[in-house]
Amino acid sequence: MANGLFISFEGIDGSGKSTQARLLAERLREAGRETVLTREPGGSPGAEEIRQLLLTGDPARWSAETELLLFTAARRDHLERTIRPALKAGHAVITDRFADSTRVYQGATRGELRDTVDRLHALMIGAEPDLTFIIDMAPETALARGLARRSGEDRFEEMGLGFQQTLRAGFHALAEQFPDRCVRIDGDRAPEAVAADIAAIALPRAGLAP
Amino acid sequence: MANGLFISFEGIDGSGKSTQARLLAERLREAGRETVLTREPGGSPGAEEIRQLLLTGDPARWSAETELLLFTAARRDHLERTIRPALKAGHAVITDRFADSTRVYQGATRGELRDTVDRLHALMIGAEPDLTFIIDMAPETALARGLARRSGEDRFEEMGLGFQQTLRAGFHALAEQFPDRCVRIDGDRAPEAVAADIAAIALPRAGLAP
Ligand SMILES: Nc1ncnc2c1ncn2[C@@H]1O[C@H](COP(=O)(O)OP(=O)(O)O)[C@@H](O)[C@H]1O
Ligand SMILES: Nc1ncnc2c1ncn2[C@@H]1O[C@H](COP(=O)(O)OP(=O)(O)O)[C@@H](O)[C@H]1O
Ligand SMILES: [Mg+2]
Ligand SMILES: [Mg+2]
Repeated sequence: MANGLFISFEGIDGSGKSTQARLLAERLREAGRETVLTREPGGSPGAEEIRQLLLTGDPARWSAETELLLFTAARRDHLERTIRPALKAGHAVITDRFADSTRVYQGATRGELRDTVDRLHALMIGAEPDLTFIIDMAPETALARGLARRSGEDRFEEMGLGFQQTLRAGFHALAEQFPDRCVRIDGDRAPEAVAADIAAIALPRAGLAP
Repeated sequence: MANGLFISFEGIDGSGKSTQARLLAERLREAGRETVLTREPGGSPGAEEIRQLLLTGDPARWSAETELLLFTAARRDHLERTIRPALKAGHAVITDRFADSTRVYQGATRGELRDTVDRLHALMIGAEPDLTFIIDMAPETALARGLARRSGEDRFEEMGLGFQQTLRAGFHALAEQFPDRCVRIDGDRAPEAVAADIAAIALPRAGLAP
């Protein structure tokens, strides 16, 4: 995508995606780069409404296929209303999750749907980040962090440790599938240490001194 | 689809779809056939929630592509939770609109999206009705009926007469594209006369005397 720089953060629940996305946005802004910090599902008014349908209520309320369509609808809105306009204006866009989350979560729950996920992405989304940080760590540690933080949006986290282990493996496989844009980062360190590694990679890509 | 009989009603706003769907359901039930009467968007609890996102608010709140994804998510839920279970149980299912509405509405607003509409349908929905009644009439007459019936869900009707004319032409083209399942019915007559024509075609298909 033209001009701007599009960065996503991925990884299991509690790995530090939201924390690191915020720290990188602060760092880029301090360096004078206009930066939009956003998240999925959500990131635009319409997509935030769809997020409410996705993340609240009975875990079985949507089938995997319907869920996939709702995530894709939210992503399309997010892309059109928030991400693309910012990139066109030459800004950096940092998103807390993007299409990789769908690939990995659907792969972990309904592996046979991966082909459908890929076709739907090609048909309705197309865009990929320029740079994706996959924050890697043991689910035990990450889950313990997450439990301190109960929100109403626990549908995925409630699926437990075994599920998070499957997700971790899925993110590993993803990094191997898209080596040009994916960078794995060890998340089991102090936030500042993780942030320093990330800044050392992202700032040069934004044309800034690290 | 196995056993059951799947019938849809299509046509421009105010043409009498809801009226005729209800009359046919009554007729089938009187003849002893178990019948599910449903509608789109909606028709299942999840799809009804998505319906609220689609039919209320600013007409420009969703792009054509996002709207298409939301309609498809609602349709998938409707199909899984309402239509397929009823057909499997051997019931008749009568739906007030189905995928043809999407084909025609998107074709009228963003004709170049028709290929995307078809691919998305093939990927995520697949099913077609056994029988589709396309209720045909002049938009002037139909629109005048509809105005007597103001609900909060006026996004499409607000687009006006020229738009309804384009839709009418779209439904004509559709009947030609799917001649095996589509039957055009003149809707500009008394409801009972329209209903009699419809029953004469539908009842034999349900294994009943017309
Ligand atoms: N490096 C870290 N070490 C310890 N705790 C952390 C670290 N990074 C984030 N946390 C805390 O762990 C929890 C989960 O972090 P968060 O950034 O929300 O993860 P995610 O967005 O990946 O679910 C939060 O309470 C956060 O403050
Ligand atoms: N054949 C008919 N003649 C006159 N009015 C009708 C007829 N069929 C329906 N109506 C009335 O016209 C309005 C629109 O009918 P409706 O069945 O809701 O159409 P649709 O569902 O296609 O928008 C309603 O107020 C209905 O009572
Ligand atoms: Mg987070
Ligand atoms: Mg109606």
